[in-house]
Amino acid sequence: MTRVAIVGAAGYTAVELIKILVRHPDVEIVAVTDLQKGNPPVSSIHPSLYRRLDLCVENLSPAEVAARSDCVFCCLPHGVSASMVPHFLDANTRVVDFSADYRLGDADVFANWYDQKHPDPDRLGKVPYGLPELFRDQIVDAPLIANPGCYPTTAILALAPLLKAGLIEPQGIIIDSKSGVSGAGRNPNLMTHYPECNESLCAYGLGRHRHTPEIDRILGIAASNPVEVIFSPHLVPMDRGILTTAYSRPVGDLTEEKLMKTLYEFYADEPFVRVVDHLPASKDSAHTNFCDVTARIVRDRVLTISCIDNLIKGSSGAAVQNFNLMFGYPETTGF
Amino acid sequence: MTRVAIVGAAGYTAVELIKILVRHPDVEIVAVTDLQKGNPPVSSIHPSLYRRLDLCVENLSPAEVAARSDCVFCCLPHGVSASMVPHFLDANTRVVDFSADYRLGDADVFANWYDQKHPDPDRLGKVPYGLPELFRDQIVDAPLIANPGCYPTTAILALAPLLKAGLIEPQGIIIDSKSGVSGAGRNPNLMTHYPECNESLCAYGLGRHRHTPEIDRILGIAASNPVEVIFSPHLVPMDRGILTTAYSRPVGDLTEEKLMKTLYEFYADEPFVRVVDHLPASKDSAHTNFCDVTARIVRDRVLTISCIDNLIKGSSGAAVQNFNLMFGYPETTGF
Amino acid sequence: MTRVAIVGAAGYTAVELIKILVRHPDVEIVAVTDLQKGNPPVSSIHPSLYRRLDLCVENLSPAEVAARSDCVFCCLPHGVSASMVPHFLDANTRVVDFSADYRLGDADVFANWYDQKHPDPDRLGKVPYGLPELFRDQIVDAPLIANPGCYPTTAILALAPLLKAGLIEPQGIIIDSKSGVSGAGRNPNLMTHYPECNESLCAYGLGRHRHTPEIDRILGIAASNPVEVIFSPHLVPMDRGILTTAYSRPVGDLTEEKLMKTLYEFYADEPFVRVVDHLPASKDSAHTNFCDVTARIVRDRVLTISCIDNLIKGSSGAAVQNFNLMFGYPETTGF
Amino acid sequence: MTRVAIVGAAGYTAVELIKILVRHPDVEIVAVTDLQKGNPPVSSIHPSLYRRLDLCVENLSPAEVAARSDCVFCCLPHGVSASMVPHFLDANTRVVDFSADYRLGDADVFANWYDQKHPDPDRLGKVPYGLPELFRDQIVDAPLIANPGCYPTTAILALAPLLKAGLIEPQGIIIDSKSGVSGAGRNPNLMTHYPECNESLCAYGLGRHRHTPEIDRILGIAASNPVEVIFSPHLVPMDRGILTTAYSRPVGDLTEEKLMKTLYEFYADEPFVRVVDHLPASKDSAHTNFCDVTARIVRDRVLTISCIDNLIKGSSGAAVQNFNLMFGYPETTGF
Repeated sequence: MTRVAIVGAAGYTAVELIKILVRHPDVEIVAVTDLQKGNPPVSSIHPSLYRRLDLCVENLSPAEVAARSDCVFCCLPHGVSASMVPHFLDANTRVVDFSADYRLGDADVFANWYDQKHPDPDRLGKVPYGLPELFRDQIVDAPLIANPGCYPTTAILALAPLLKAGLIEPQGIIIDSKSGVSGAGRNPNLMTHYPECNESLCAYGLGRHRHTPEIDRILGIAASNPVEVIFSPHLVPMDRGILTTAYSRPVGDLTEEKLMKTLYEFYADEPFVRVVDHLPASKDSAHTNFCDVTARIVRDRVLTISCIDNLIKGSSGAAVQNFNLMFGYPETTGF
Repeated sequence: MTRVAIVGAAGYTAVELIKILVRHPDVEIVAVTDLQKGNPPVSSIHPSLYRRLDLCVENLSPAEVAARSDCVFCCLPHGVSASMVPHFLDANTRVVDFSADYRLGDADVFANWYDQKHPDPDRLGKVPYGLPELFRDQIVDAPLIANPGCYPTTAILALAPLLKAGLIEPQGIIIDSKSGVSGAGRNPNLMTHYPECNESLCAYGLGRHRHTPEIDRILGIAASNPVEVIFSPHLVPMDRGILTTAYSRPVGDLTEEKLMKTLYEFYADEPFVRVVDHLPASKDSAHTNFCDVTARIVRDRVLTISCIDNLIKGSSGAAVQNFNLMFGYPETTGF
Repeated sequence: MTRVAIVGAAGYTAVELIKILVRHPDVEIVAVTDLQKGNPPVSSIHPSLYRRLDLCVENLSPAEVAARSDCVFCCLPHGVSASMVPHFLDANTRVVDFSADYRLGDADVFANWYDQKHPDPDRLGKVPYGLPELFRDQIVDAPLIANPGCYPTTAILALAPLLKAGLIEPQGIIIDSKSGVSGAGRNPNLMTHYPECNESLCAYGLGRHRHTPEIDRILGIAASNPVEVIFSPHLVPMDRGILTTAYSRPVGDLTEEKLMKTLYEFYADEPFVRVVDHLPASKDSAHTNFCDVTARIVRDRVLTISCIDNLIKGSSGAAVQNFNLMFGYPETTGF
Repeated sequence: MTRVAIVGAAGYTAVELIKILVRHPDVEIVAVTDLQKGNPPVSSIHPSLYRRLDLCVENLSPAEVAARSDCVFCCLPHGVSASMVPHFLDANTRVVDFSADYRLGDADVFANWYDQKHPDPDRLGKVPYGLPELFRDQIVDAPLIANPGCYPTTAILALAPLLKAGLIEPQGIIIDSKSGVSGAGRNPNLMTHYPECNESLCAYGLGRHRHTPEIDRILGIAASNPVEVIFSPHLVPMDRGILTTAYSRPVGDLTEEKLMKTLYEFYADEPFVRVVDHLPASKDSAHTNFCDVTARIVRDRVLTISCIDNLIKGSSGAAVQNFNLMFGYPETTGF
């Protein structure tokens, strides 16, 4: 039995995480923290958790959290997270960090995209990127894991095997991603106000979305070459799900058969990546930890289509997958 | 050509109103006001109005508004409206008021339901309720019209003809209403945050919704008897549309034929009420000024079903209908 | 380990059932049948099941199904089901029947509402109604269970405790129900075509919906008195979820405190009914086997609000709950 | 007053067309035809048209239609349309054809993409493509107009000005389009069944969508060079709206200022194209005949974003715009 704490309980990732963890046979949730006053029941913030988790939200110091728990799921905003995580690690509590703080390899890149100085720059580049399909070996023994972003998960799982195999050019990759609204978090604003975004579709953050350097970095590792992607996120009127259509150029002659064979072989033993022959719908992976992937060639361009549930494989499910690896449980436990 | 001003431009009723008025051949929009700073273009607040209305939002005093315009569409919140309206009237500018401030007949009832003192109590009970289907004669010459609430419009148009004809009991009427989310306005909050209300359905404000006394009052006039309805609003995951299912008890023997004949005759000459034999879908009246109505008898209970677009017949369309009557234009002008 | 077969695999109830059963530690799915030709993989019909259930759909006779399995989940249409179920029972295979065929007590009532002769009239009235919260004792040893309808589940769980306690009048109960579109099944038609029902709301089947006699019967048992409800179903633009608002008259003086206390006590030990103080949103119980219930008094009328996921507690979840009782597993196993 | 007939009344384009035409001051709708039996009222097929158009659907021969009307809006499926259109033209009735039959320039290309022989090959290449923004001069006097496809409208209006100005390379253009479900028509099928496509997102028809050669042809004319686009349509859970994100390579040094200036100038006098500085949401152009366009440069790639209401500017609105030009009415009449 592993004792876990959830730090930062107000958002959608926390509630999805709790839903998975309460079914995990080897986990005891020992603390759920937030800046709330007065220790309200978790279910007063997330009514769907009523009778599923009978804990109260506490406002605890990092030391108090670390004293109780073997593992912290840290669901804090970027910038905040990296100022808390060192306290947990110093107390020998392992951490799965949901923020972007440890996903990049370089403090300057971070400063560039996040408009702030990194609070814990020395660890950058040494923290495993929590995508077990690519970095399983590094994850097992790590004290801290950088849980991947939702958009990057779709892009990387589709493209990394093709880059590693040298089937596509690393330059000029276009990543057109479409996400449900839960990806924008739980703080109400005009963009996510129902009558504004319902029955509507828009692109946003073109050229400025902070998942760009994260995709660049991990695809660069896969390609053993610098990668700079053109990444375009879109907001789609649905709760959850991301579908990413990526466009790249083939290296030499390439057939769909070769593409698909490469994907099938790369993911042959992976429990949570489903290579499919059909064009997947995001709904097929909704409420699961699966990523569905396929590929096509259209007029000498390679198209990959990949989709996930942004809150599960794109966040909380991936976190539990990492946790299972870190603590020696079968990777699929709890799902 | 009538010069009109729109006071309170930030919400959904204002934008729908403008969309109708820019097509009205006898209207010139002379001012659009709000508390914004710096006179931004209307289209910067409502991008859908770009190239449809090239005015800037101004922060004008009531006197300035009145000096420019023959009619004010007052889209301010309750309480605020009744402190502005008297200024317009004093300057001989006629007003269609979108708020609830002049819909009730009594300052005590207002204070009871709205938790505040009425700013202009002497006018209460003397302002025509802007439902032309019931009060057309009073509307034509009135300086001020109380534009009806969206829920009351559906309930009253379905039930008033039956109460007037003495076909149903005025006691114990149950009004189960379902509304799209735009009815909650344009201020973001958790209840109307997309991932909260999408794919969900709830009742709210049971026994406390402020449209209750308004329905009571107008149905009481129709029945020539006190009416106290049981009113239950529900929030439905769609942009616009209200569908109301009301349950009442027949007086004596009553057939569906009799019910429907009464409705058909009552609305025979009405341009905006469509009595239909089928069960109407709210979508059929979306983006129109129609109210669709039908009735059934189930196990000796009278069921009426009525629906509207809450932003058009339930608000801005009704306002233009009233405006047309007040200024001598054919009632359907602009639609 | 219990061997189960799913008969009638093409619909939404089958796919939700399979998702629960593949997580049930004591179940082996031994057959999935349908009238399909050529034994396609289950995942070719339901892509979401790819890599979750690697069986093929077979076109098997009842005898073949019974030979392989200890329990059949029969997901066939009404009328068809009751001509198959006797074969399973004769072969000593127990059955949870999803159709309406065994829910009523009387072949005449069935003929009246379903426009056909009942194929197996002698069993009517002897088959337990599969709502464990009311009929747990009968379910444990029964060879056949009539799994409840989705609408009736919401209405009965809210009203039965109040009728049993004599708190509300059994006459004149009004049940206004709102359902997501998956309740209409998986056969495409114009009513459920996306651009028709999206962004729309309608009542349907007023006075004719076949869940009416089922509600009458079970509430009649709870009231020890004949009950004839006025039942109005509505179609709501969302995938899943039913919310039911019911209106009844109190017997004598009644307070909300008394109402709520009765509900809390009645469901004190129930794992899947959550009595809540707030007005529940259907989303809070989506993708779970919970029914959320609350009650209010408005102007001397009792209002109950209850909601479920129509595919889980309203169908497949209830079926597994019944299965657990029948085969001696803890009632919450698999959830 | 111009007498018009609508041939093929059952679909969504017909109903939107009628909604525009009944507000057009110079149009008399003289016939609405379909293969229906028994001359049902139009409103029995489209309930939203009740009290807006009191005609019955007739099953008329082309000669009967032509005898009554000056202009036919032909809303028939591809292949069928080109076998009817010649009859109208022979009778000197002008035609706006909604199908794809006359959009391509070559019978072989048609046969290739539509898997059938063209019924009227001699007219191919001589029929103006009904995009007034590019081909206004040809439209004015033409007997027959090929009304554009919805996807091509978004792609062409964004890219043609840039190709004409030589700002982007004509090779390797990627067009990632996202459409609401009404684009798939009104025939129910599993893909557009509400519980299948709601809350889901998918790509479809990659490399095979029939709008591809139409985009190739018109962009080729704009570029004065062969164009072969990579076109990826996606299905988005909303009723209406298309948003297209296109990716192309700049020719030489190119700034966003230059891009935007080119667009602003090209569309300076166009009533229905709104060049915008912000990233447009499809909802802003919903229920209008506007196309909203903008452009960005991201990492040396040109991105254009354009959106329309697929049923209005993408179909019926464009048809009325063409009709106005053909019959000498101001282009914006009826909108």
